[in-house]
Amino acid sequence: MVLPTTAEAMEAAARERMSAVAYAFYASGSFAEVSVVENVTAWSRWHVRPRMGMDVRTIDISTTILGTRIELPVFLAPCGFNKLAHDDGEFGVARACAAEGTVQVLSSATALLPEEVAKVTDAPKWFQLYADNDSGVTDERVARAEAAGFQAVVITVDTPALGIRYQGLADFEAFLQELQGKEIVAPILTFCERLDWAELERIASTTKLPVVLKGVLHPDDARLAPEHGASAVIVSNHGGRQMDGSIPPALALPDVVEAADGRIEVYVDGGVRTGVDVLRALALGARAVLVGRPYLWALAIDGEAGVRELLVRFKGEFRNAMALAGQTDAGSVDPSIVVRAT
Amino acid sequence: MVLPTTAEAMEAAARERMSAVAYAFYASGSFAEVSVVENVTAWSRWHVRPRMGMDVRTIDISTTILGTRIELPVFLAPCGFNKLAHDDGEFGVARACAAEGTVQVLSSATALLPEEVAKVTDAPKWFQLYADNDSGVTDERVARAEAAGFQAVVITVDTPALGIRYQGLADFEAFLQELQGKEIVAPILTFCERLDWAELERIASTTKLPVVLKGVLHPDDARLAPEHGASAVIVSNHGGRQMDGSIPPALALPDVVEAADGRIEVYVDGGVRTGVDVLRALALGARAVLVGRPYLWALAIDGEAGVRELLVRFKGEFRNAMALAGQTDAGSVDPSIVVRAT
Amino acid sequence: MVLPTTAEAMEAAARERMSAVAYAFYASGSFAEVSVVENVTAWSRWHVRPRMGMDVRTIDISTTILGTRIELPVFLAPCGFNKLAHDDGEFGVARACAAEGTVQVLSSATALLPEEVAKVTDAPKWFQLYADNDSGVTDERVARAEAAGFQAVVITVDTPALGIRYQGLADFEAFLQELQGKEIVAPILTFCERLDWAELERIASTTKLPVVLKGVLHPDDARLAPEHGASAVIVSNHGGRQMDGSIPPALALPDVVEAADGRIEVYVDGGVRTGVDVLRALALGARAVLVGRPYLWALAIDGEAGVRELLVRFKGEFRNAMALAGQTDAGSVDPSIVVRAT
Amino acid sequence: MVLPTTAEAMEAAARERMSAVAYAFYASGSFAEVSVVENVTAWSRWHVRPRMGMDVRTIDISTTILGTRIELPVFLAPCGFNKLAHDDGEFGVARACAAEGTVQVLSSATALLPEEVAKVTDAPKWFQLYADNDSGVTDERVARAEAAGFQAVVITVDTPALGIRYQGLADFEAFLQELQGKEIVAPILTFCERLDWAELERIASTTKLPVVLKGVLHPDDARLAPEHGASAVIVSNHGGRQMDGSIPPALALPDVVEAADGRIEVYVDGGVRTGVDVLRALALGARAVLVGRPYLWALAIDGEAGVRELLVRFKGEFRNAMALAGQTDAGSVDPSIVVRAT
Repeated sequence: MVLPTTAEAMEAAARERMSAVAYAFYASGSFAEVSVVENVTAWSRWHVRPRMGMDVRTIDISTTILGTRIELPVFLAPCGFNKLAHDDGEFGVARACAAEGTVQVLSSATALLPEEVAKVTDAPKWFQLYADNDSGVTDERVARAEAAGFQAVVITVDTPALGIRYQGLADFEAFLQELQGKEIVAPILTFCERLDWAELERIASTTKLPVVLKGVLHPDDARLAPEHGASAVIVSNHGGRQMDGSIPPALALPDVVEAADGRIEVYVDGGVRTGVDVLRALALGARAVLVGRPYLWALAIDGEAGVRELLVRFKGEFRNAMALAGQTDAGSVDPSIVVRAT
Repeated sequence: MVLPTTAEAMEAAARERMSAVAYAFYASGSFAEVSVVENVTAWSRWHVRPRMGMDVRTIDISTTILGTRIELPVFLAPCGFNKLAHDDGEFGVARACAAEGTVQVLSSATALLPEEVAKVTDAPKWFQLYADNDSGVTDERVARAEAAGFQAVVITVDTPALGIRYQGLADFEAFLQELQGKEIVAPILTFCERLDWAELERIASTTKLPVVLKGVLHPDDARLAPEHGASAVIVSNHGGRQMDGSIPPALALPDVVEAADGRIEVYVDGGVRTGVDVLRALALGARAVLVGRPYLWALAIDGEAGVRELLVRFKGEFRNAMALAGQTDAGSVDPSIVVRAT
Repeated sequence: MVLPTTAEAMEAAARERMSAVAYAFYASGSFAEVSVVENVTAWSRWHVRPRMGMDVRTIDISTTILGTRIELPVFLAPCGFNKLAHDDGEFGVARACAAEGTVQVLSSATALLPEEVAKVTDAPKWFQLYADNDSGVTDERVARAEAAGFQAVVITVDTPALGIRYQGLADFEAFLQELQGKEIVAPILTFCERLDWAELERIASTTKLPVVLKGVLHPDDARLAPEHGASAVIVSNHGGRQMDGSIPPALALPDVVEAADGRIEVYVDGGVRTGVDVLRALALGARAVLVGRPYLWALAIDGEAGVRELLVRFKGEFRNAMALAGQTDAGSVDPSIVVRAT
Repeated sequence: MVLPTTAEAMEAAARERMSAVAYAFYASGSFAEVSVVENVTAWSRWHVRPRMGMDVRTIDISTTILGTRIELPVFLAPCGFNKLAHDDGEFGVARACAAEGTVQVLSSATALLPEEVAKVTDAPKWFQLYADNDSGVTDERVARAEAAGFQAVVITVDTPALGIRYQGLADFEAFLQELQGKEIVAPILTFCERLDWAELERIASTTKLPVVLKGVLHPDDARLAPEHGASAVIVSNHGGRQMDGSIPPALALPDVVEAADGRIEVYVDGGVRTGVDVLRALALGARAVLVGRPYLWALAIDGEAGVRELLVRFKGEFRNAMALAGQTDAGSVDPSIVVRAT
């Protein structure tokens, strides 16, 4: 056990092990960086009202996401350039996920070929897609991910342009050098400004894989998603790196769940730091949560083993939170156990 | 008079007199330790609107809890291992309660035999029970407490597992040594994961003593309690040591009182620091309040005498608050004197 | 102009000129001292929505309180032992009020005889009364004030007992010595625990002077006041020195005004620091406000001249705030210019 | 690119380049200076809910204000004495606006003749008017501005008197010397205490130019404005320099927009710091926003070039925010993308 126990201490320990440029890239947000902070604090706006008098000898903390069983309702958000955090990089993260029974969503922002990562373990994994303005390029990426054995395509929809990140990319030249120093030859990232619902529907039609839309905050988009071929949405504001000042995922979640109306699965990402946050998300209707920065910090601190330890910790914390709340099934958490703090 | 007058100063003074391990054990909470802080601040969310034009020459600050008269509507929450705070330990606390006319709820987390503590004074006292997964063990504990003369059984229901306490038990080995150094041979604590309503009802049926459920926050549980043999509930989140981020008792209280609907008594515990907090609790429908950490700090500072001074202070503060609010009977405080701060 | 311009700087400057004991006595509150702070911040919870397009060449900032004209809708709250702040003491305050055309409410907590203060100026002044448990003593005080020429009796109703003030009277012995050093032979203060509505009505019946009740926060008391002989109420929590955690006067005011329903005048006291606060109070239905600590600080800094400067400042600030809000008559401020900050 | 990226850093950098007197004059507010802070923080009370699945290849960030096209929905608020910030002064600001395609609202608080500024560029510019108690003086000013080619008259209506500014004009003598040192011979500023709706209507009738009322916060004034000849209103509290504690423009905007009911254009000014704030304002119904202090800081740091850089930055940030929110037309931003943070 080497990870510090508080989120702040974990970030501080990771920071010591990374270059200033890499840390800034991961830690920063866009514009005035309001959302980076609000994402975390917003979870505490939901007070938990645990139930007592429940037999909790048997608690099932596993669940399924699009039919794939995961051993805890936490999986790993797509984060770019994992080697900036630690040499174990994406391969190490893949092994940690496989060992602990959860899904890695491989970011497109990596120099690795999807086939390479797919080979590392037999565990199910998902592919994060940045669509291209050129549909042909997009289709090739999807086809390649499908061929490599990925089991879902997570289309990032909140990135028609890169959010303005004054702090995170203040010295872009130094950032590129940092990538090179880690032998990361970054693929040229193209943001898709024309990624409308028609194109999303078209992409979905080109693959047998289920399509997940990452970056939904508005309930109307949750209504449109299933009508255009999506099987799930991720409530997310991209870790506060795109639209700063956006509604924190913890607060956007209920409206999205209501709008989804059970037709698609809903996940959430942003500011989840403890097993209690996971419990809150599930009580609010999310099927599972994704974590981003926490696994980057764990990776920086102890490589693959750090990521495993983080996942083990989430298992322990979530199981504990379930027991304390009188809940026994991650798949059917009682909605009445959370109330808005006023 | 040796106790500092503010809660912060009292905790600081106590900290100086305790080992770091003991202080951490008492002061800490679980997970991110949000509730430890919120429990205290939440009371200020209720603004008091005192009544004027009342004759307050005669104020009765005594009340009854399950028929037992206490000289002030404050009694002592079960806290483990009192000897960690001061050599006077549980015996000293018992004597202080007897002297000031209130009830000690003896924690099971002590190496002392209930018979030993029961002998210390003739005053009424209650027994806190951690149920066991083995009903036979549970029944033996209850029978023994009843035989020793305890007058109520307080079943802690919010502890199907120990809340994860990173700070409080960071060095568990050192904690065990600390216990040994104080000649505390801790009983093995078993948490009861199967403590469902049926078992609670069964336990209640094995004893003539009234049963109190400690750790209720959800109004549905307050509705179920009287249907399963409970005579009272304690609105509590275990001092923020179990479900972190739970609704603070000060905010959970009104819904629980409404759900209890007069069928059972309702007490509250968590963050009570002044006589004004006690007044707020009673106006919100609690029959009495319990205090935990404050008496541990008082015990650490001045042993048995410190606990007495704390109780004397609560008497003075509560009587003063009653007078200032135009209230004359602790048993019937006007509900309209508190309003939610907005 | 010698007074600092911010409330914080004024208090700091005054503190330097007073003994620690005297400063603590004035500055402190009761219990945990929450209300001392909240009284001030609560005014900012009312946002001002000024009106434009108004001809404000002529603004009348004077008003009447119980028929007595005052040159600004601010008068001086009864504060004890003014000589602790400055040798000019109550006499200096009386002269400052007379010079600036407002009313001093003389505190009973002074060694001065009411006749002495009444002689200082010809200006109208009011007498603050602490009733006594012995009605005869109370009646004698009222009769004497009436004979001395005071024009109203302000009965403090929020003091059936002294609020517990740990900070302000931590060293009571030193406080008494401080009084003696200032040649203040304090009258023995008796708090009236039996001051019920019947007694209030009886007191009112003994004098031709109008009776004002100081310390009303609950709307029901505002309803009862005119039925028992009162001509006005002061919404006040005694500067946070009695019931700590009470609703701040700024937030209690609207309900009291509604309950008073025009039958009695309503004033407010607590946390007023600027002319904008005065404007807020009048928009919320108060006829005038009282200030306490600010004049004590001004007195400490520059004696009688300091109090005058403070009153001149309030005139300037209030006139400015009226103009900026498009208001021309202190007696009929548009209620729609304040809205609750949410 | 020389401007710091955060608002705080920009103000700090500007401060280093200005005299203490000039900085205090610009940075300060009135009374207790609550509004200076609240103006900025209030924008974050609106959470953004971006729309996804939109084709944002073509985004039109230009709009019109009273028929004049501006290249971004941001124009420059009238601020006095620009030469205090930098020798480029009002002329430099005019050139920067012309170069970036937006409107300068020239403050009357300048020693420059309107004709001089009008000659600097051919770009459209507006004239800010302080009306005079003498209508003849007012009319002369308006006529002169019209003759000089200004395209609209912005009448400041929130200044019947100067808000009391203890910090900003603490040493008025030094301020006048500072003006002289910059060869600014300030015109004598007369505040119009009689600027009622009749006079506003009369002024409007004297000119062919459209009239804009700056300083509206109350919805009733937004209703009256079009009935008295105004073509637009600016929701503003004068940067917190007039009525302190007033409702922040970000929070006053929705009620004003509703009251305006499409009959007049609505702009907003106060606390806008990023392109996300601009997006919020447009979603709430403003047609455009004005910025004040930010351009003064930019001017202080790098003169005309600094103001251009600021406008370029606002273009980039606003375009980015539009894309991220799935919006393509500054003239018709979807109102559902903002929700009140609770």
